[in-house]
Parts: sequence; structure tokens; C-alpha cells
Amino acid sequence: MTSAITPERLDSLFRPRSVALVGAANKSMFSRLAYGNLVEFGFADRTHLVNRRGAVTHDRPTVTSCAEIGEPVDVAFLMVPRAGTLDALSDAAAAGIRNAVVLSSGYGEAGPAGRVAQDELVAHAASLGMVLLGPNQLGFANFTAGAPVTCVPGLPHTPGPVALLSQSGASSGAMVEFATTAGVGLSLMATLGNEAMVTAGHVLDYLVDDDATRAIAIFAETVRDPDVFRSAARRAAAAGKAVVVLKAGSSALSARTAAAHTGALVGDDATIDAVFADLGVIRVDSIEDLLLTAGAAAHLGRLERTGVGVVSISGGACDIIADRAQDVGMELPELADATQDALAAQMPEYGTVQNPLDVTGAAIIDPGLFTRTITAMSADPSVGVVAVVNSLPWSGEGPYSGQMFVDAIGAGVAAAHCPVVYVNQVMAPITDRTREVLAAGGVPYAIPGLRQAVVALRHVTWWSRASRRHDGSPAAPGLPASDLTASSDVPVPPPGDRHGAWSEDAARRLLADAGIPVVPGRVAGTADEAVRMAAEIDGPVVLKLVSPDVLHKSDIGAVRLGVQGEDAVREAFGEISLAARGVSLAEVSPAEVSPAGMSPAGMSGAGVSGAGVSPAGQGVPGARIDGVLVAPLRRGGVELLVGVVREQQWGLMLAVALGGILVEVLDDSALSPLPVSPERAAAMLRGLRGSAVLDGVRGAAPADVGALAAVIARIGDLALALGDELESLEINPLRVDGATIEALDAVVTWRPAR
Amino acid sequence: MTSAITPERLDSLFRPRSVALVGAANKSMFSRLAYGNLVEFGFADRTHLVNRRGAVTHDRPTVTSCAEIGEPVDVAFLMVPRAGTLDALSDAAAAGIRNAVVLSSGYGEAGPAGRVAQDELVAHAASLGMVLLGPNQLGFANFTAGAPVTCVPGLPHTPGPVALLSQSGASSGAMVEFATTAGVGLSLMATLGNEAMVTAGHVLDYLVDDDATRAIAIFAETVRDPDVFRSAARRAAAAGKAVVVLKAGSSALSARTAAAHTGALVGDDATIDAVFADLGVIRVDSIEDLLLTAGAAAHLGRLERTGVGVVSISGGACDIIADRAQDVGMELPELADATQDALAAQMPEYGTVQNPLDVTGAAIIDPGLFTRTITAMSADPSVGVVAVVNSLPWSGEGPYSGQMFVDAIGAGVAAAHCPVVYVNQVMAPITDRTREVLAAGGVPYAIPGLRQAVVALRHVTWWSRASRRHDGSPAAPGLPASDLTASSDVPVPPPGDRHGAWSEDAARRLLADAGIPVVPGRVAGTADEAVRMAAEIDGPVVLKLVSPDVLHKSDIGAVRLGVQGEDAVREAFGEISLAARGVSLAEVSPAEVSPAGMSPAGMSGAGVSGAGVSPAGQGVPGARIDGVLVAPLRRGGVELLVGVVREQQWGLMLAVALGGILVEVLDDSALSPLPVSPERAAAMLRGLRGSAVLDGVRGAAPADVGALAAVIARIGDLALALGDELESLEINPLRVDGATIEALDAVVTWRPAR
Repeated sequence: MTSAITPERLDSLFRPRSVALVGAANKSMFSRLAYGNLVEFGFADRTHLVNRRGAVTHDRPTVTSCAEIGEPVDVAFLMVPRAGTLDALSDAAAAGIRNAVVLSSGYGEAGPAGRVAQDELVAHAASLGMVLLGPNQLGFANFTAGAPVTCVPGLPHTPGPVALLSQSGASSGAMVEFATTAGVGLSLMATLGNEAMVTAGHVLDYLVDDDATRAIAIFAETVRDPDVFRSAARRAAAAGKAVVVLKAGSSALSARTAAAHTGALVGDDATIDAVFADLGVIRVDSIEDLLLTAGAAAHLGRLERTGVGVVSISGGACDIIADRAQDVGMELPELADATQDALAAQMPEYGTVQNPLDVTGAAIIDPGLFTRTITAMSADPSVGVVAVVNSLPWSGEGPYSGQMFVDAIGAGVAAAHCPVVYVNQVMAPITDRTREVLAAGGVPYAIPGLRQAVVALRHVTWWSRASRRHDGSPAAPGLPASDLTASSDVPVPPPGDRHGAWSEDAARRLLADAGIPVVPGRVAGTADEAVRMAAEIDGPVVLKLVSPDVLHKSDIGAVRLGVQGEDAVREAFGEISLAARGVSLAEVSPAEVSPAGMSPAGMSGAGVSGAGVSPAGQGVPGARIDGVLVAPLRRGGVELLVGVVREQQWGLMLAVALGGILVEVLDDSALSPLPVSPERAAAMLRGLRGSAVLDGVRGAAPADVGALAAVIARIGDLALALGDELESLEINPLRVDGATIEALDAVVTWRPAR
Repeated sequence: MTSAITPERLDSLFRPRSVALVGAANKSMFSRLAYGNLVEFGFADRTHLVNRRGAVTHDRPTVTSCAEIGEPVDVAFLMVPRAGTLDALSDAAAAGIRNAVVLSSGYGEAGPAGRVAQDELVAHAASLGMVLLGPNQLGFANFTAGAPVTCVPGLPHTPGPVALLSQSGASSGAMVEFATTAGVGLSLMATLGNEAMVTAGHVLDYLVDDDATRAIAIFAETVRDPDVFRSAARRAAAAGKAVVVLKAGSSALSARTAAAHTGALVGDDATIDAVFADLGVIRVDSIEDLLLTAGAAAHLGRLERTGVGVVSISGGACDIIADRAQDVGMELPELADATQDALAAQMPEYGTVQNPLDVTGAAIIDPGLFTRTITAMSADPSVGVVAVVNSLPWSGEGPYSGQMFVDAIGAGVAAAHCPVVYVNQVMAPITDRTREVLAAGGVPYAIPGLRQAVVALRHVTWWSRASRRHDGSPAAPGLPASDLTASSDVPVPPPGDRHGAWSEDAARRLLADAGIPVVPGRVAGTADEAVRMAAEIDGPVVLKLVSPDVLHKSDIGAVRLGVQGEDAVREAFGEISLAARGVSLAEVSPAEVSPAGMSPAGMSGAGVSGAGVSPAGQGVPGARIDGVLVAPLRRGGVELLVGVVREQQWGLMLAVALGGILVEVLDDSALSPLPVSPERAAAMLRGLRGSAVLDGVRGAAPADVGALAAVIARIGDLALALGDELESLEINPLRVDGATIEALDAVVTWRPAR
């Protein structure tokens, strides 16, 4: 039934003309709080109280069922115990009510029995054609429409541009309070609870079309419907509405593909980070940053440039901002010569013209210095927003002694060539007093606190660039709009035998056909063939078992590196053929080590396994053996792991890691959903902590990162072309040596048939 | 004169019986603010106004000089222009005033001329026997004594336990305001300005003895007198008073020793981190964390255990706390069985017994659940402090609807076995309203905001352990009290020829004499000797030039690795001897490559340098050549860089880094002032990002970290024993292979004579 949860449908839930409070009772704190809110917002005359016994409740007459109401009602707020919920739903539906908000708990959050009850609840609502918010939540409040259908107390009466969604009911009151404290106006507050039917993604999708909402703040412990969320987040990005998520509670690592090391790099949390980055969704890590970032994004909108210019009354504040900017990656661009000249013309001789700019104590005598430096700073070609640091009052009465500075800053806001935001030096509340002072000066918005402002502006500038990918805007540096679809020139591979794992040789051919460079190599069925092939290769060779049943060849001794000369090749071939059959070398005679030959395909070691099976873990009795791959040995260069693995919730994810000791010692990898453009792949490489190794260390040639990124993007495109059957595709190592890029080994695994 | 700035001396500055406001003027905003504060705190009758013309000022009669006052005055607050400051000092001194607070700017912060003026100012004050606070600052306020000698407005009237010191005047008002907003009471606020005479270290030293101060918060851009600061910080740690520093403005990297790579690892900022960690000084990165951490430390004092137990009304808050705790390293210990049983007996069946503990909605019906779970949590053997998460009001009047929860939490505070702190879910102010609600419930202290609380508690728990090193308390894990002095068994090396750099061979002997394991090796003066020495070594050898004038031997081709066999040794010896003399191999005949011999010492290549000097950068014409070192080639294992370098401000610092590709690709090192105990060395090793390499990767044996740490500590002890003349001592690499630890190469450099 989730397909029924369209934005149009949710409008009748979130913008109700009338509400039935089902389970209204004087002794229920929830009922008292909910009714109190309805009264406070002047919604009482559109509220119907339903009480099982028809008792006068909250000093009003009640009805005993929704059917008795006798006029159209949009939403039933069910405050009945769990046991009575199904009946209450039926009653509401019978009265023509199409939306239910379910308070009671004991469902999905409460073990197996609860999950059964939740399934029944959803099935029942669906059968009645009802949309259901909850269960296990505290309702919602639409501040724009003045409709509070919630037990959360302390609701603000002045609506604003930020919608707040929370899976946690118990924290929602505190979040609403903080929004008020920090001057972040709310358009909607919705607690989502278990999201049995309506999920955060659905509400997000609804809010994209809600004119009153300009940014969406979400507190979530999990994303319950990834497809809906992803689609809604893309629509929000295209609409220029920032989505800010406080994602709490890192859960266990995602299920892994045993065959691919990639899986181990894909934790739930890293996946969420990668998916959010892809979608232009901002991730924060505190309630304060959630609301302040959403507030700043709603106020500032999408910025044209991502540099932040800072004008400050305090040199100490400049230092703090510079330090934190470096920590979180906020851009403080160097100013253009013209900007520097313009600022120098204004600043006292003892001041320093730079960004952040300390206007010095000269501004105390001459507040207009604020106006003029803001104007000059805002004209810099790299500056997308000017942050002005000064103090603000939050208590007290009468004229504010610093009003002249606020006035001067307001004049700067009016004259500026880009958005300007006021930043209070510390995190103090934005009260009516503060708003009066700001309004008198013509300053529209203020962020409380230096750290908070740096975090919020870093996020808003990042989002301003990242969200453009989703709306067909002109390409921003590093993130062209075109990277949302795979490049089209990877041919769709033929179906083949898509189950289990493919042998290295099959995987090699798949890569080569897709235009991904692979180290040359041929499969030998006999030792003589191997010797011939090795002789055609300049320098030492590598011999490797080719078998779809042996993924970790080196674990069983079925890989020989740096083999040179006929005898050595012959001996290595023999050892590999024995190892594959689970025969330990110590157990066989020298004659057996140089077998006459193997049949090229379908060969089985089962025949000899009884005679000499080696200790546990060695060999794979019964393994199919396709032969031995003979390839040149590569030395030097940098080795990477490039893997695509299917994440349960979010689909195919591409991971890039540096190989060798770096991947073992550091947990250093970059992750992205597919498709991955060459630009994105290059950014992933640059984001690795050990990325300096690509610049060429110890005299090595620098890697051709552009060419490497193109190969990585192509690997992702191949994985996409392989479609739903692919489980994982891992190239380990992908070797890069200057401009030479080659896959040295590869594994492909397929999903079990469904 | 800094020796005169004792705590006793500063008491007459910071606890004045009377004050002279010199430069008082109606039209001066500074004068109005300063006098307003004195009036507001009832200090007006102990204030004397000095006005050049004797004009009535601030509605009071004035005198034209301090000498006219005619009674004892403790502090002169000089608000005169820079040009008049020296005269004003003389006048004050003549009147018997021993302390001056200098407001005016244009000194050390204002270029070379300003620095000259500042030197004059200090010299003049010193000649008058005066102690001087500033210049370029806004005064101080002693809240305990009710003495506000400052232009900072908005001072609080209720004193508290936190002293706030700030080098920034412009930010001090905002910091004081935030302290008030956040309910952090202040004992003293002092702006320090240029610290021409009185530095943060002096005031810190004074505050160690100030009973009203239980924690010290410092906003600093630089530490101006490291010795004074270090000594004061140690005394504060011993006294159980936390020192919290917001150190802003990372300056340029420290001066480096060209001879030692170690220098490059020692940035100013990393040095400050290492020194603060050593001293138990807490470092924070925002104004809010500065004051909230100091407030929490002052309230909680030093904790007996470092685990934090969390009791929360919201599961969402538990998730946020767990995530942030992991980010910042706050310990959330697993609860002991007995604690789990005790909690299980209280919790509803659907709750989960864990830390952080969500008391669930059951606490709404039964607030006593808070009391009982706090009590049980506080008895856990790992828990040193219990943090209780719930909401708090900051505005409104009349009875608070949540008072019953605060009451229940207060009952938990009273019954608890360890300190308990209340945590508001969001960062809202602590107002009179909040304090009433807390006081009514018997709750002594609250921290506003989950993120802020996690940061503050992480710092307080860390400090509780780290500060014990300085007071002779029983050893805390990893930080025994004994590690403050070097182990005594490193013999003081003989003076030797301490200038310039020592050759590898001399450095090797120094290490060996100090009991630091060094790879065996001997110095050959002739090719024949080298051949003989190599023959006595099993396996390939290394040949290296020994010369005090060539520090980067491999850069000039004077190192040969993996040499085996008589011919090869002879050839390598010849090549090295030529390379040392700056002769490129291409330019000499084969005969010359195998010279008959070199004199063992004092040999010079100058004689041949004219004949075949190689391109720029090759060889060192005129270099002294002591011979060629012959040593076994070591393979495998892990290589580290262990270096001691003299940091300009803070003295000898020991750096540890992983060698090879890891140190090149990552900026991965650990730093500590000396002495470094084996326990500290082990902690430094564990703190490296690439430390997993020591656990044995790719089948290598795990390093004996205990033995390695002991060697590292010994290297530090040797550096200390070498005393003031040492510039740097670098071992690169120090090789560890299982339990085998050996220095493979070393460089020692000495300070230029002073």
C-alpha cells in the first residue's frame, strides 16, 4: 500500500480540516497534552472528542464512536491502548476518516510479538484504505496551518521555514524547544515512530511540494524505505531544499559477501555516509547542528559560490573560525586583489587585510566600517556568503548599547552582493529581545555561536554544490550533472552462467570485453603449454590456478609468483595442480609433481583426493579445474582494491582502497553508490588518507589519476550493466604504474536465484 | 623581573582594596564602562578618578594625579593614550601604587615600533617595581572579592568556581556572557592582552592557591612563558584543579633541525597537544566547550573512576551519546553483572539493560525509576560519574510540569555512590528559572546539551586520570606517577666533541654505551678490511660511508645495501669512497674504483675533488671521511623513526613514527615531551594510526611492544642525559622484528655554542 502514500494523499493528513481525538480522557496525560495544544492553536472547534463511555472530557461533551460525529473528519488521533487499535481504525474508517495517527507502543519496537501486531495493524489499515502515521509516536504539528495533532508540549506559535521529522518521540519536545531557543522557525514537526506505513521518505517527498518548507531536518536511527527516501531526497535537491539528517545509532555491519573483501569495507555507517553524499543530503552529529544547519540552509538558500568571507569584531573569533574551518573543511578563500584593495582602503593602517577579517577596535569608533567591509567582502569572486561576527543580546530591556553595530551590519546586508549572515560569538538564545535588535537593524538572520556557525556554513556551502547534480544545473567543479547516469559505452555483457562465482579467467574476459585493461595472460592445460606460454613472456611469470570453486587461490598454495625458466615453470604447474586437488607436496613423490598434463576444462581432482588430502583448509576436493593461468609478473607501481558489492538496503556500492600494507594497516577506503563518474572516482581517490602514494613516493612515477579514475568509473558502469544478478565484482589488485593501469586479478560472484 | 610575579604579589593586583581610574573621562566609552562596573559592584567608594584636568567626571570630583589621592591604592587602571603611559606609570609609582592595568594598544601587537614601545614599557615598570597587566587588554574582575577593574560589560554578580583568562579582550565579553548563560559561575575574569609582564602562567599559578577557584579556563593564542606555564600547570594538577585551554591560531611550524627529519613532525600545534597531554591540561576547540568543561570539572572535581554511566529519558538521546562518545573517546563501560541485575530489577520488561540506559516511558508514570536506576548505575565498579539526561525549562513561570522528574533525579543524586550530573537534552540557557527548578529538586549542577555534555565529561574523565601523575597519587593505568622522571640507569655520556653533527659510527657508540641495541658493525679503513669484515657476517651486508660531514649518505650514493661476495664488497667500498669525494663513477677508470686503501681517519677527498667533481649536490668536497661501516643487511620487520628534537619553546620532544611508506604517505606520528616512560612510549605506539602494523601483518611476527617501548623510553632518557648541548638525536630506522630491536642508523646533532 505504500504506493498510495503520495504527497497529495499526505496533504489530507498533515493539513487536516478537522481532527478526532479517539481515546480522549481526563486522566490521560497524553489526552490532556494533545487537547491542550488543539485549544492553544484555536483548533478546538474543529476537534471531536471520542470517549468510550461518552463521558464529558476536558469539559466538553464527547461521542462514543467516530461514526457518531456526523461530519467529515480528516484525521483520527488514536490514543487508545494497543488492544483497541484495530477496532478504533475500523470505526474511524466507517466514519469516512482516511488518516490515522497511532500513539500506542508495543509494536515493531517490542520483539517478535510486537512485529506480528504491527503487520496486522498495517494490513488492517491498508484494507480500510487508510494512511497511518506511527505507531509508537507522539503525533505532528503543522505550524503553517495551525494544526497541532500531538502530545508534544511547548509548541511555538510563529511558523518558519524548517520542517522537523523525528523517529524519536521522547527527543522531539527537546528539539522543538531548541528550535525555538535558536530562532529556527518550524513549518512542520512530525514524530514518525515505527514508520509502519508512512516513512521519513514519504514525508520528505510531501515537503518538497510544501511552499512553507524550505529545509528539512530529520532525526533518524535508520532509513526504513531507501527507495522512497532516495527518490524524495533527489527531488528535494532539485527543488533547492536542503535535507539535514542526524543519523544516530550505528548498527552492526552490513551483511557481507564472503567472496569479496569489499564487503568488509562497507559498514552501515559508511554506506549511509556515501549515499547521503551522493544525494546531497547533509549529515550532522548533534541536535543543535541539525536545527542550526537546517535553519541556515532555509534562510540562505543555495549559494552561488562556496567560499565563506568572514568579518569579525574580534581577532580571537577570527582565529577560532580559521581553526574550526580547517577541521570541518569550510572554505575561507584567499581574497582577490581587487577585494584586498577595497578592504585596505577601509581598514585602519594597523589592521591586516585577510579572510577572516578582524575589523579591529576601529569599528567601535566607526561602526560604518562594518558596512563597508561587508560590502567589499561580498563582492569577492570566491565568496558566496559573508558571515559577520559580533555579539547579540538575549535578555534585558530598553535600548541595546550595541544597536549601532547591528544597524551598521544591517546596512551591510542591504548593500551586499551575496547573502550575509550574522554570527553571535557564543551560543546564546535568540529571544524576542534578540529579534527586536536584529529587526531594528535590518538583519534577517543570526546563527548563535562560532563553532555552530562554521559547521552550519560548511554544510550549506557543501550542499550548495552537491545538490546541483540533481537538478540539471550547470556543472559545479568536480560534480557534473552528467554523473548521475552511467556512461553508455559499456556493452551489456551476455548472460553467461550467472551463479556462484566465476573463475579468474572468466572474470578477466568479462573485464576485457568491457574495455577495462587486464594484464595479458593465457590458460595452460598442460605443463608443456605453460612452459611455451611463459617462454613468450619477457621476464618472470605468475602461475595461478583457474577454478570457479577456489576463490582464495593463494590460501591453498595455488599461486606462484616470479617463476622463471622452463624447469621452474614446469615445477610450479605441478605444484598448483596438486594444491588444487588438496594434495600436500610432502605427501607425493617427485614424479607426481610433474604430471603429464591436465584436461583443459572440467577436470576434477576428486579422483586423487582420497589418496592424499592435505590438512583441513588446504585444497578443495572436488573443485573444478579449468587450467593454470600464465601471466607476466608485474613489479612496482601502486596496487588498489576496486570492488563493487551489493548492499542490502542501498544496492550496488563501489569501494576503492589502496592495496598492500596500507589497506591492511589502515581502514582507509572510499565508498560511493553507482554510477560513479570519473570525476567522482578521482575525488574518491583524493579522499583516501594514503592518497599521497599516488603522487609517487620513493622515486616512483606519479600515477595518472585521470586515467585511473576513468578505469574505476568503467568498473562501476560494468557492474551496473551486469544488472540485478550481480552480487559482487572485485578487482584486487588494480595496478597503476604511471599511466599503465591493469587489473591483475578479479572475482565475480552472483546472487543466489530468488 | 618576572621572578617578582609570585602568587603573593598578584594577590594585591587581583584583590585590590582600592583602585585608581587613571584617564577617567566622561566622553570615553572605556571609562564609562569601567566606572559603571565599579559602581555596580559597590566599589565606587574605593575608587579614585584621575583626570588630567581635574574635571568632574562621572559626576564625581577627580584628582589630576595619583600622588594627589593621599591614601593607599593597590591598582592603577591606566586608560591613557599610549604616549602618556610611561608618565602615568611614574605617577602611580610615586603614589605608592604597585600594580598597573594597561588598556592602551599599539604595543607588541603593532609591528616593530610597537615592540620597542612594549620593551620600554616593561623596563619602566620593572624599574619602578611595578607589576603590569597588559597592555592591549580590558582589565579583570574578581567576582569573589567584588572587584571589577575592567571595561567588559555585563558582568555576573554571583561568583562561582571557574576562573576565566583570555588573551583576547574583544571575545572576553562574549565568554563572560556565555558563562552566565550556561550557568558556569566565575571566580575571576582576567583579560591578559600582550602579557608583557604578567602571563597566563603567572595568573594560573596564582589561582592554584585561590580557594574560590576550582577550575581555570584559558583562551590563548600562544603560551608566552612556557616554563612558568608548565610549572603552574603541574601545581594545578597536583591541587586537583582542572586547566582547560582553548588554544586558537595554529602558527607556523616550529624551527627545524635540518639534520633531523624529526623536526618536520614537530609542528607548533602538535607540540602544544603533546605538552598539554603531558601536563594533564585539557584542550578544547570552542568557547562553549571551554566554559562548560571547566564548569563540569569545577563541579565534579577529580573522579575516582573514568567510566561514564548514562541514564536517559530518551532512547534517541542514548544513541546520540553513544555515537559522540565513540567520536571523542568518552568511556561508556559495560556494566558489571551485579549492576545489570540491580537495573533489571527496576526496569520494565520491555526495556533493555545497558549503558547508556533508556529508562523508557515507564518513568513518566513512575519517576522514582530515575532515582533507583541512578543509584544502581552509580554503584557500578567502572562508573565514576552518572549523567542523567532529561529536559529542563529556561523560561516561563509558575510550577514546572516536569518538576517531579527533577525531584526524582535529585533523590538519585543524594543516594548515589559517585557524582551525578544532570544533562539537558539541548543547549538551552541555565536561567534563574532553571536554577529554581534544579534547586527545588536538590540537583546541584546541569550541563546543557548532549554533545556538550559528552565533550565535557570526556575531558573531565581524561583529566581525572592524567592529572594524577603530578600529585604523587597512586598510579592510574598507563600513567604511573613515576614517569615524571627519567629512569636513572642511563649513564651520563662523556662530553666528547659536542658540536655540529656526529658520524653514524660515533652516534652508534653513544647509543650502545647507553644500552640501546644497535645493529653490529665495524668501520673498515680499506677495501681489504671491508672484505674481511663482510666475510665474518652471515649473508649479505650493508656498506655505508662514515663521515661527520655527510648526513644524508644515500643522497650521494654512499650507501650500498645487500652486498655479497668479495668482489662486490670491494667494488662497493670503492664506489663509496669515490662518492664521498664527489667523484661520479662515470668519470673514473675501473682501476680507480678499487683503490688500495684509505687512511682510517682524517682522510680528505679534497685532493681529488678538482679532478672529477660530480654535478651539484653530489659528494661533499673536503668532507672528513672516517671509513666505511660494514654491517649485516636486515630484512623484514617493521621500521620506526624515533627522534628527539629540541623545540624552541618547550625543550626536548620525542617523536615516534612508523617508517617506510607509512611515514611518507601518512602524517602519522606521536609526540611527547621528555621524559617518556615505557608506558607512555607504549601508548604513543598504540596511538599511531598505522599501529596495526606492529601486530604483525602479512604473516610477520607481532612486535614485542613492551620491549620496543622500553627502548624508546631509553632513547629519551639518553637525550635527557646529554643535556642542554643536544640539538637532536634521531634513530632512523629503529627496526623491530618480533622481540629483536635494533637501531640501524642514527644521527646526533649539537646546538651551536651560545
